[in-house]
Amino acid sequence: MQPRDSGYEARTRDSFARQNAMRTLGATLESVAPGRVVIAMAHREALTQQHGFMHAGMLAAALDSACGYAAFSLMPADAAVLTIEFKINLLAPAKGPRFRFEGRVIKPGRTISVVEGRAVQHADDGADEKLVATMTATVMTVQGRDTLHH
Amino acid sequence: MQPRDSGYEARTRDSFARQNAMRTLGATLESVAPGRVVIAMAHREALTQQHGFMHAGMLAAALDSACGYAAFSLMPADAAVLTIEFKINLLAPAKGPRFRFEGRVIKPGRTISVVEGRAVQHADDGADEKLVATMTATVMTVQGRDTLHH
Amino acid sequence: MQPRDSGYEARTRDSFARQNAMRTLGATLESVAPGRVVIAMAHREALTQQHGFMHAGMLAAALDSACGYAAFSLMPADAAVLTIEFKINLLAPAKGPRFRFEGRVIKPGRTISVVEGRAVQHADDGADEKLVATMTATVMTVQGRDTLHH
Amino acid sequence: MQPRDSGYEARTRDSFARQNAMRTLGATLESVAPGRVVIAMAHREALTQQHGFMHAGMLAAALDSACGYAAFSLMPADAAVLTIEFKINLLAPAKGPRFRFEGRVIKPGRTISVVEGRAVQHADDGADEKLVATMTATVMTVQGRDTLHH
Repeated sequence: MQPRDSGYEARTRDSFARQNAMRTLGATLESVAPGRVVIAMAHREALTQQHGFMHAGMLAAALDSACGYAAFSLMPADAAVLTIEFKINLLAPAKGPRFRFEGRVIKPGRTISVVEGRAVQHADDGADEKLVATMTATVMTVQGRDTLHH
Repeated sequence: MQPRDSGYEARTRDSFARQNAMRTLGATLESVAPGRVVIAMAHREALTQQHGFMHAGMLAAALDSACGYAAFSLMPADAAVLTIEFKINLLAPAKGPRFRFEGRVIKPGRTISVVEGRAVQHADDGADEKLVATMTATVMTVQGRDTLHH
Repeated sequence: MQPRDSGYEARTRDSFARQNAMRTLGATLESVAPGRVVIAMAHREALTQQHGFMHAGMLAAALDSACGYAAFSLMPADAAVLTIEFKINLLAPAKGPRFRFEGRVIKPGRTISVVEGRAVQHADDGADEKLVATMTATVMTVQGRDTLHH
Repeated sequence: MQPRDSGYEARTRDSFARQNAMRTLGATLESVAPGRVVIAMAHREALTQQHGFMHAGMLAAALDSACGYAAFSLMPADAAVLTIEFKINLLAPAKGPRFRFEGRVIKPGRTISVVEGRAVQHADDGADEKLVATMTATVMTVQGRDTLHH
């Protein structure tokens, strides 16, 4: 996919760095390509549900950021990204020890973009990959609204 | 709605207390009725996205817990609850200062239950209510699997 | 809710009448209020799935029209409505003999509106109501595109 | 993926043939593989919305059948398939002249399976492919209920 802004990577990394929520999750931005973003995260006791697995909402948070920034990477330099809605399916208990969240734009649009997300858990050495969640997110390109700063 | 387990409230509160993720969010369990659960939370800097609003994933986490426990309150005493999928629509920037998350079962089922969630932001005195997100969650009753402890 | 176009009802009825798909379903437009539309339909052998119940897609079609027109009723006179996405939960086998589909806007917006839909089956005399499906739809207001005629 | 029933293809084709709704749509079952089903359909005036495009609900119906039968192909011989919920994103106006709907299981399960669907439009000669809709469906394996005949 073709980015409209050649500075897409720095712009995306800057915005991600302002997401306090990602810092709280211990999530890091692994890679930024036009229309594709990967976020990494480790299992954390502080983020679990009642059975000791990662809380679905925490997976959703990382996947939402991966999907939103995948769309953001294709937007004009002065645009902000807004998640309109997302849907997540939980496929397996999320035990980690590590997770990779990938967002991939399947339909870039002037106003509306549709992005698919995948959450994979794996061992520390990258082995034993398992798909634990999938997301579809609808995100909006917002321009010229003073109240939002990208 | 009729609970199958008269100890539903203590059982639900015990399970919620084991969700480390809710503690990290500063979320508290406000009320538990058969098929209806309310969670409260305040706006926190540590949970924001790049514009200073609450991250959609953090709203999703609290709504998912509200929806899951609304269904859990109707389940048999030995059951565990599993979120199969949820979908969230973000309706307005989530500024707080306070939030209320309500989960309400619209279709209780032996295996599958469907729950609707609403996230409302309001002032410290309860005024200025605004609907900021809605959720539909599909949750499953799990019984007799040793690997899951409710 | 306040319509922006006082001719909303005639405009909505005109557009509905152009939906050949609704004619194929035998669906009729029962009522149009600002932000709320009701469609009616009878069970039809031609629309069933393998067990003799109404096909989920046929319920989805009627609910999508109810949701889309609920949003359309609030739009400016020169706007077209576009469904971006919808999600449907099937709660019970849809036997009829009659169905009522209601769309209700929960968040009207300049560009994006969010609408909830409910499908209820009932007897010919209106008794024995049962909720068989729920929908959340995200719809878009489109203006000034020559290729779309509302 | 490994089918549990070696007669999966005949079983799937038999069930599809009992879906009157697919006959009304003019939809045909193109191929059945374990965990993957393709349905074909032509644009029809009788199935359009107000702008002359295929109604989103009609695309949803064909995608729902593709997804449901993709999961059904992996089920035991005596099982019935039930759609719990699906979500569809509409990516482009569906003009045809021909459509292909593919359902692909991404998580087969004893009780719950998750399936992804893609709707592609193309020319009569197969050229000019365009992705017009995506679906995620959650389906259930039902066994031992007398009221449902697969």
